[in-house]
Amino acid sequence: MTTPTHPTMPLRELTMALRSRELSVVEHITDVLDRLAADNHNAVIALDTDAALAAAAQLDAELARGRWRGPLHGVALGVKDLFDVAGLRTTAGSAVLAGAPPADADAAVVARLRGAGAIPVAKLHTHEFAYGPTGDVAATGPARNPHDPSRITGGSSSGSAAAIAAGHLPLALGTDTGASVRTPAALCGVVGLKPTYGALPTDGVFPLSETFDHVGLLAADVHGASVAWDVLARPDGTGGGIQAPGVDGVRIGLLLDDYWKALDPALDEAVTAAARRLEARGARVVELRTPMIDELAATYGPIVGAEAHATHARWLAERPGDYQDFTRQRLLLQADMPAGVYVEALRTRRRLVPRLRAAVDGVDALLLPTTRLRATPIGQREVEVGGAAVPVAASLLALTLPFNQTGWPAVSVPGRVADGGLPAGVQVVGVRLEERGVLRVAGAITGS
Amino acid sequence: MTTPTHPTMPLRELTMALRSRELSVVEHITDVLDRLAADNHNAVIALDTDAALAAAAQLDAELARGRWRGPLHGVALGVKDLFDVAGLRTTAGSAVLAGAPPADADAAVVARLRGAGAIPVAKLHTHEFAYGPTGDVAATGPARNPHDPSRITGGSSSGSAAAIAAGHLPLALGTDTGASVRTPAALCGVVGLKPTYGALPTDGVFPLSETFDHVGLLAADVHGASVAWDVLARPDGTGGGIQAPGVDGVRIGLLLDDYWKALDPALDEAVTAAARRLEARGARVVELRTPMIDELAATYGPIVGAEAHATHARWLAERPGDYQDFTRQRLLLQADMPAGVYVEALRTRRRLVPRLRAAVDGVDALLLPTTRLRATPIGQREVEVGGAAVPVAASLLALTLPFNQTGWPAVSVPGRVADGGLPAGVQVVGVRLEERGVLRVAGAITGS
Repeated sequence: MTTPTHPTMPLRELTMALRSRELSVVEHITDVLDRLAADNHNAVIALDTDAALAAAAQLDAELARGRWRGPLHGVALGVKDLFDVAGLRTTAGSAVLAGAPPADADAAVVARLRGAGAIPVAKLHTHEFAYGPTGDVAATGPARNPHDPSRITGGSSSGSAAAIAAGHLPLALGTDTGASVRTPAALCGVVGLKPTYGALPTDGVFPLSETFDHVGLLAADVHGASVAWDVLARPDGTGGGIQAPGVDGVRIGLLLDDYWKALDPALDEAVTAAARRLEARGARVVELRTPMIDELAATYGPIVGAEAHATHARWLAERPGDYQDFTRQRLLLQADMPAGVYVEALRTRRRLVPRLRAAVDGVDALLLPTTRLRATPIGQREVEVGGAAVPVAASLLALTLPFNQTGWPAVSVPGRVADGGLPAGVQVVGVRLEERGVLRVAGAITGS
Repeated sequence: MTTPTHPTMPLRELTMALRSRELSVVEHITDVLDRLAADNHNAVIALDTDAALAAAAQLDAELARGRWRGPLHGVALGVKDLFDVAGLRTTAGSAVLAGAPPADADAAVVARLRGAGAIPVAKLHTHEFAYGPTGDVAATGPARNPHDPSRITGGSSSGSAAAIAAGHLPLALGTDTGASVRTPAALCGVVGLKPTYGALPTDGVFPLSETFDHVGLLAADVHGASVAWDVLARPDGTGGGIQAPGVDGVRIGLLLDDYWKALDPALDEAVTAAARRLEARGARVVELRTPMIDELAATYGPIVGAEAHATHARWLAERPGDYQDFTRQRLLLQADMPAGVYVEALRTRRRLVPRLRAAVDGVDALLLPTTRLRATPIGQREVEVGGAAVPVAASLLALTLPFNQTGWPAVSVPGRVADGGLPAGVQVVGVRLEERGVLRVAGAITGS
């Protein structure tokens, strides 16, 4: 095993090192594979060693001929094991799919990134079938948080967040149906972007809920996320380029309703610090109320539950023992839902999203905690806060799921943690801003 | 009562007579109101006499000042009692809404037509809550077919079709969730247009199924339907104008699968006659197969059923006796549908519509019967065909509902009836053609 140093380079430096051939693609990919092979956070499901090294050699040869595909040329890519990668099995973290045949083709976004020169190196841990925000329920056991291996990574893109936080990888794909890119990013102290609903194709991704599924990405810093977003959003290579650094005059909304409050004061403090930083850079911060949020948020569970159960109904009947107990129990809770409950949830959501939009119409973006709790101990379903038992999963979903319901772009970035403890995610949500605008605000918060 | 003559004028002549002031708007509206008051097809729910006469006087005054709003200036409009008309109660043909307050505002399409000079004169009969294609289930009793008052009009836009067929009215609004504009048009021998899904707003229309509800219109001839479509589609008055009359080179598909066959040979004969007429005018007729149609069509019932039941669940529990027995029974059949059945129906539809589109991709339009049966006796739920009992409702839905599932534009026009008996509807469906193209083909069939 070589001494792994390169992957911890920020993507900007990695791109320059690869392009200048100071670092060869084969060296970079070898380092990443070595790191992933030695990973002790249970982040990895499978390595794609031979294909990755072959691609690395080819991309080195292209550089030798003067061909450079762009900023992801030769960059290692981790892929949540919910996406198809040609030649590898998609297991979705479940024994149900342990015997699935290898995928024939890449998922659409994998193909885009591969075409831009990124090299898929590994399938990464996911909460079983992406149906949970903790990352500790999977056929291969729990993922472990690099900041404290006794704690969860958050999920469901658990391996993606852990591998980046551990410095193994510069970039990973995830999915986000209610939390699943932003929450693990927050709990592991990395950057996670959920783009606008429908902005990236979900072809070749195992579905959780067609109403709310988004493809997203995770990176070590905002710059890395921005580079990957530009490639994914514009696979023809047009557009993109340097983003304007300023947030002068940008209107930022803070949400005052009880719903939006964190349970861990470090999270609200991180938001306050981020708001001050944005104000210092010329943003205007205003306070808003969203009185419909509890009713809107309550439609999330029935919609995801009905859609997930419909996907799994046959396997649940035929092979119940292949599911993790917790996943099977959660899915079976949905089995008896009447169609009317689902129809009414869809209707309530359609009715209330425009009212939420109207309530925040005066701002460009919202600033709030990503989660109500920081990383909790693995396997623990409730924690005590102020003498009361608080459910972990709900606390890791509540502040992110509304933006799967609205479909607005949202990014989680590491906030300032005054107590020096576990990472605290700060979420920037685009109301009038698109992905690049959201990332610009995020960059102003982190200084990256 | 004056001798009613004017409403039976084709819309083209009516427009000219009104514009030239040869016929005043007040005379026309008075005639129509007299006819509707004397109607013996149970087509009318309520007249809007005072408002209609006031509007007529105003539109006469505008003409006297030289202002002409366009081809619907002063034209009487019938409105299915599923649409809001300001000042009138919307009962949806049900005792459930018999005590509803008058509507505050016009439905969006009523407002558009009113702004273009049309005058809503009456709320017209609808199958109760539009949940049925026969038109003989309503709080006010069955609508009666002007061609044989012992027979159904078809539904759910029963009063709209009957009033036009009786010559009471030149134009009426209907809705079409699976059949409800085209089927009554077919059974009553008038023209019914279901535009592309979403082309006309459903605001102010009592919903049946948000997935499939379309606003449509009925008129005595294709020219009348075309004029009304132009006004509805372009409320700003731009575009429209004279349509090209030809169908030279247009590719017309006939569907060969058993699913698409009528049960009454007069209907298939009417389609054959229409195809010959189109060929004589230069169209090219090809034969196609759609092997996925049975599976696709089977998703219609669960989707409409779940959505309709969700709308009515509370009233069904609180006021079951206010529904007609048949409607209540049909709705209650949906009460126990699991959410998964509905989710899977939506998924199957999403999967198969592109396959249907691919199967017919080589043609501009499809030509087929509108219904499998012609008008059946009122109250009869099954008829005998070739020794077998055939369900009436399914036979009046089967050939129209696939185009609510695809959302493609479709029009029913009266076909040639070789036996001189009841009307037989011929349906033209746009694959590559939009509404105006479909109407152009329809006009080539009817010669109007």
